Order: sequence, then structure tokens, then C-alpha cells
Amino acid sequence: MKSDRIWLEDNLLALNLTDSMDVTEGFSRLSFSQEEKQAHQQFNQIAQELGLEIYRDEAGNQWGVWEVADDQPTVVVGSHLDTVYNGGGYDGVAGVLTGLAAVKKLKEDGFQPMKNIAVVCFVSEESARFGVSTIGSKAIAGMLDKDKIASIEDNHGVTFKEAVESFGVHWDSLENAKVPVEKIASFIELHIEQGSVLEESGVSIGVVNGIACPVRLKVKVKGMANHTGTTPMDRRKDALVASSPLIHFVNESALEINQKNKVPLVATVSTVKLKPNAMNVIPGEVEWGIDIRSVDDECKRNFADTIRDYCQELAKKQDVTIDVTTLVDNDSVLLDKIVQQKLQSACESAGLSFISMNSGAGHDAMNMATRWPSGLIFIPCRNGVSHHPNEHAELEDLVKGTTVIANYLQTEAGANI
Amino acid sequence: MKSDRIWLEDNLLALNLTDSMDVTEGFSRLSFSQEEKQAHQQFNQIAQELGLEIYRDEAGNQWGVWEVADDQPTVVVGSHLDTVYNGGGYDGVAGVLTGLAAVKKLKEDGFQPMKNIAVVCFVSEESARFGVSTIGSKAIAGMLDKDKIASIEDNHGVTFKEAVESFGVHWDSLENAKVPVEKIASFIELHIEQGSVLEESGVSIGVVNGIACPVRLKVKVKGMANHTGTTPMDRRKDALVASSPLIHFVNESALEINQKNKVPLVATVSTVKLKPNAMNVIPGEVEWGIDIRSVDDECKRNFADTIRDYCQELAKKQDVTIDVTTLVDNDSVLLDKIVQQKLQSACESAGLSFISMNSGAGHDAMNMATRWPSGLIFIPCRNGVSHHPNEHAELEDLVKGTTVIANYLQTEAGANI
Repeated sequence: MKSDRIWLEDNLLALNLTDSMDVTEGFSRLSFSQEEKQAHQQFNQIAQELGLEIYRDEAGNQWGVWEVADDQPTVVVGSHLDTVYNGGGYDGVAGVLTGLAAVKKLKEDGFQPMKNIAVVCFVSEESARFGVSTIGSKAIAGMLDKDKIASIEDNHGVTFKEAVESFGVHWDSLENAKVPVEKIASFIELHIEQGSVLEESGVSIGVVNGIACPVRLKVKVKGMANHTGTTPMDRRKDALVASSPLIHFVNESALEINQKNKVPLVATVSTVKLKPNAMNVIPGEVEWGIDIRSVDDECKRNFADTIRDYCQELAKKQDVTIDVTTLVDNDSVLLDKIVQQKLQSACESAGLSFISMNSGAGHDAMNMATRWPSGLIFIPCRNGVSHHPNEHAELEDLVKGTTVIANYLQTEAGANI
Repeated sequence: MKSDRIWLEDNLLALNLTDSMDVTEGFSRLSFSQEEKQAHQQFNQIAQELGLEIYRDEAGNQWGVWEVADDQPTVVVGSHLDTVYNGGGYDGVAGVLTGLAAVKKLKEDGFQPMKNIAVVCFVSEESARFGVSTIGSKAIAGMLDKDKIASIEDNHGVTFKEAVESFGVHWDSLENAKVPVEKIASFIELHIEQGSVLEESGVSIGVVNGIACPVRLKVKVKGMANHTGTTPMDRRKDALVASSPLIHFVNESALEINQKNKVPLVATVSTVKLKPNAMNVIPGEVEWGIDIRSVDDECKRNFADTIRDYCQELAKKQDVTIDVTTLVDNDSVLLDKIVQQKLQSACESAGLSFISMNSGAGHDAMNMATRWPSGLIFIPCRNGVSHHPNEHAELEDLVKGTTVIANYLQTEAGANI
């Protein structure tokens, strides 16, 4: 087992474009960045060394395929390689890496698949750069409406369209990405939990039942910009002062709901844009971004309504205007029951403990699930920390995940049904 | 008087690089930008048409000089042409424009000065782009420490040094800017009030006694970034939630102080930087910028101490770390008594009402006052609005300001003392 560990360690570093996982600032491989591209190139190299054929679809997703026969369906496993700003080296990478490791294991074991097997790395899963997520899997599942998001700008004024094109993806064909294999039999993804349920319960694998998709709100507050030095305190329409109680309200209300409800809900004021954001000018405009999640869709939507009502009250009280826009509002996704059972069997065969659980975060699997039988498994991560330089998963848990994936692939690709 | 008005109107547009003052987005001629440079070129053209000699000092300030004799001192009037983001067309421009208009008036009246007269437009007065202000007048007054600010970045990652150099100013000589005339006799500046004292009292001119210089604080809050979807509400260290009560505290405390104290104080949380500022990540770090002003230096500093204490309490209560740094802390500036008297006489000669008042905003005059006898006058602006597209001063008030400046120059440059 030792050489497997060394292989995992080496290629964890390779996919993260680093010599050490102990990087103070973490990893910043933003969506459609040159860093994401370099990680894709690393993926290609590793996949080629394993004897896989490399394909790139119209959205820029990379596929490493163990080709058996053109007319056979393909069992797919994968995840993504992009990160948030100063993120960790396991979110996404763990899924791509263990997919490749599972193929390596099967090849070394002399397994002869009856179906094709593919490892995919999806492009642009994280919403950190453009506020939109899972682009690659949306494209392949036919769920992408590119014109809606073409002109969204990143922090440096680069539009989504410009970023896509400078990544080498043709804008016109982005929406029409096609799977580079005959037919997908099923899709599975491994991901770090990004929570602490597994760690605290000492369970090896979480088999995911449902994925909570967020409601996202943009709250735009308009007051009146004016000079900080010359505008008396009682003559101001400070958009920041007027709307700051919203932060407390969102947090406290979410805390309260969790005391009452069985299904958890999380809500976060996670972004802010101040206008003009200058030392000597009273904030004239503020734009808050709010992210609300629960597998209980009704609870999630009621919470969004509560925020809308509160904003109306605030606007009246504080003499500012507040507009609340819904950026995202998707139903939660329930994953394929049969794939779940097969993943549980794969855990059992490996002698690994598992639990059934929900995911608070969105993943590529939720888009794949709209078209193909799809599954998602979690491995523990230290203290539940993710999207942060301290994100960490134990090598041992990557090995366990690899075994579960290999077992699943062996069962799925072994029999010609 | 009609042709004077037309000249003022035409050149107000010219200095603002516009065909109309009614621009929804206002004017954005940021410090050391190409727009500021274009406005300087307009200044040069107008000054040349008035028969003035053009000089540019090592800091990039432009001087239009009515040269009488090399060995004579120079009476200087002026202000700046840069603006904040989406600012108004009068802050700065009004002072440069009325300075030029006063020279025109004196020339048309056949006035023969005994001393040189100069109109100056200082570079980079506003702090909107780099958080540092009045660069041009600081340079000429020998108050600039350029190495301290060289690496400050604007919102696009351009450093102060890079901006200075791309403006065509040599970095090495910036600090050693020299007045391009023999000796300055005195300096006066006209500015819009950026408050509503004059408008509400129906007085034409404010003769400024003291300028309130700000204390500016940077409050850096460190919590813990984590995934918004997977981190339960009771397991968070959200830096935004933890520090948001500060906004309310600063505002309420300043309101209270104004009810107790005679000398007003203003305090504003005016800037924010969130890390990572991404929809799906709990805010791990927040940096707030706070601007505090009062001509009562003790009151202003006590207020800053109150904020520091409150931040310490917050840090303890909320389990985050908070560091408060003082970015700026300058004494208020009292202007020359004799220049004030002469400006009051200039108002009286013109038959214009005036009051003595303080300035809540910093101006180039405060730096000039450290080396030369200096004065500052205000004209009203509509509703006290400034640093906003709605900023407006009446043409009539620009005419009145022109008359006061012309009277002052006539007295000061007329007699060879």
C-alpha cells in the first residue's frame, strides 16, 4: 500500500502545482485562469501516464478515458481543479486525484473492464471569480445559459466571456459541449465533506442523498454619497449605516431557525460592494450578497422572504431605497437511489463505515444528476475547514476514497448489462 | 457682466472636459489619471489665452504666471482639478476657474500689478484613488514622504509610484518640487463649502479660520473563512458578523457627541474590504476604514480612542482578532489671521456678506499654510452636496468669488511693500 500513498502524495502536489501543501496563502486557481489551465495540463500528463486517452470537450472539461470499445457506455468519475481565492488544495482535487488513483489500482490489479471508464475534470466549478458556479458540468448537462452571464465582471473588470475566450474555449460552442464518449452509464464524484459530521462521528465515508442548492440574493441599498468632513451627522443618508443591521438580522434569524427546525439552514452575508468606497466619501450605495442553503426548499425560500420583508422595513425606517434581486433559486437535488446503494455496497466491500447524509454545498454531481444516474461521496476534512488555506484531508482518507471508487468502477464496468 | 458669466460657463465646461454639467455619472478625474492630465492641458490653454506664462513643477502642478519682474514675490491663488469617483464638477475646479477669472478681470480693468500673480492647479488633491490626499501641495510645501506611499495600490492594482510615473512625473524629483517663481507672498484658495452653512444662512462668502484634519483608522478583523453551505451557524467565526456592530457604534457615538459639544465632530465608516468577498465563502477578514474629523483635536483623538476601546471589547466578545491602525492623525490647521482680515476686506469692498467659519474638509491651503501666509474662502453649494454627481454651485456665486479674489489680488499685488 506504501507505493499507492506515495503516488497519491506526489500527484496531489502535481495537481496543485506546488512542492508543498503547507502554503500560507493557500491556492488561488480561479475559474478560467491560467492556473486552472496548468492544473488541467498536469491532469493530462498523469492520465496519459496511466494509459488513458485525453479528450477536451467544447466547454474546456478534460476527459481521460480508458477505452474498451466505441459502442460501450462509459462509467465516469471526476470533479474539478479550480479553487476559490486563497482556497485549499483538496476541494475538487481530491475527487480528480482519487478517480485517477482508482483507475491506476484497477489497472495494476489486472482488471479488464467491459465498459469504458473515464475520469473527468470539470472546468470552473467555483463561483469565487464570477459569482456563477459549476460551468463545466452545466455545459455538459445542457443547463448553461451563457448569454445571461457573458458580461459579469471579475474584480479586475474582466468579463466572463473574455475569461472563457482567453482560456481557449470558443464562446459560441460553450453551450453545446458534448460528452466525448458514446454514452454515460453513471457519474460519481468524491469530495471532501467541507463540514465536520464525518470527523466527529468517526465514520469513513458519507454517501450523499441530497444536495442543498442555494438561494442567492443581491441587496442594493441607495443612500446619498457626500463629503465625510463637511456633512453633519444628522444630515446623512449613509447607505452602510442604514443597511448594516441586515448582517446581524440574517445571522441571528438563521441561528434561531436551526433551534426550531430538524433540517439545518445556513445563511451568510458573504459579499459587499461599497460605492464609492473612498475614505472621504459617505457610502452612497452598498450591495450585499446573501447565500441561503437548506435541503428543505420551503424553509430556504421562506427565509429569503423574511429577508425581503426586513429590507422593506429597513428602507422605510432609514430613508434609503433597498432593492432585493434573486440571483439564484434552484431546487435541491436528490441523487439516484440505486447509485447510492451501489456506493454503500462499495464501502461495505472495502470494510469501511459509512453514513447517508446531505450536502450543504453544490457540486458538479448535482448537474450531472439531471441527465445521468449520479452519486456523490464525502471523505472527512480536518475541523470541517474548507475554502481556506488550512483545508486538509488525511492521506489515509484519500486511500479509503480511492478504494470505494475502485470497487464501484469494478462492479459497474465489470458486467456488460 | 454678461460676458464674464459666459466666459465662466464656457471654461467650467472646458476644465471639466465636458459639453454639459448635467452628467448622470458625474466626473471621474482620479489622481494622476489621464483625465486629470487632460484637465491640466485645458488649464494651460486658458491661462495662455490670458497671457500667462506656463510652468510645471517637479510634482506635476501647473502654474500660470502673470510675470512682472523676476525679483518680485508672487501672490498665488489656486486649487486642484482632480475629482473622486463619480464626483462633481465644482470641487477644485471652482478655485482654479475663479483664480483665472480674477486674472482676466484685472487684465480687462487695466490693472498693473507690482508683484507677480500666479494661478496654480495642484495635482492629486483627492484621496479617492490611493487613500492619500493633497499630494501636489504637500510636495511644494516640502511635506511629502513619498517612500511611505510608493506601494499603495489603487482598485486595479496600480501602485502610487506607477501612477505618478505614467502621469509623466519623475519619481525621484517628486519630493523636491520647487515653486517656479522667486518667492510666494501669500496663497489663497476658493472652494465650494461642501456643507450647507452658507446656503442656509444666506451668506455669500465663508472666510475660513481653521481646517479640521482627519484622524483615519484602519480596523482589521480576522475571523475564519469557511464554506457558506457546509459550516453550521453555531460553528462560525464570521469577521463581518463579528464587526458589523462597529458601524452603528461609530455613527451613534458621533451623533451623541454633537449633542454635547459645541465644536462639531463627524465620523464615518467609509471603506470596507472583505476577504475573500465570494458568494460561497464566510467572510474570513474585514478591513474597515474610518474617517473622524473635528477642529477640536482633543475631541477627535478621544473619539478615536473610544473606537479603539470598543474594538477591543468586540474582539473579546466575538472571538475574533481586531487590529486598529492609525493611518492619518494630523493637527487641525489654523489659517493666517492677516490673510483672513484681508479676505474679509475684499468681501466688504465687493459689498458681499461673509462669515468666519471652519472647514470640515482638508484642502491644499492647509499644506500651503505651513510655509506661507495662506487663506481659504468658501462659496455656497446646493444642499451642501459634494463628492456626488449632484454637486452644484450657482454661476452667480462663482462670479462673487471671482470678485473677492480679484479684490484681494489687487490689494496684495498692487502695492510694493
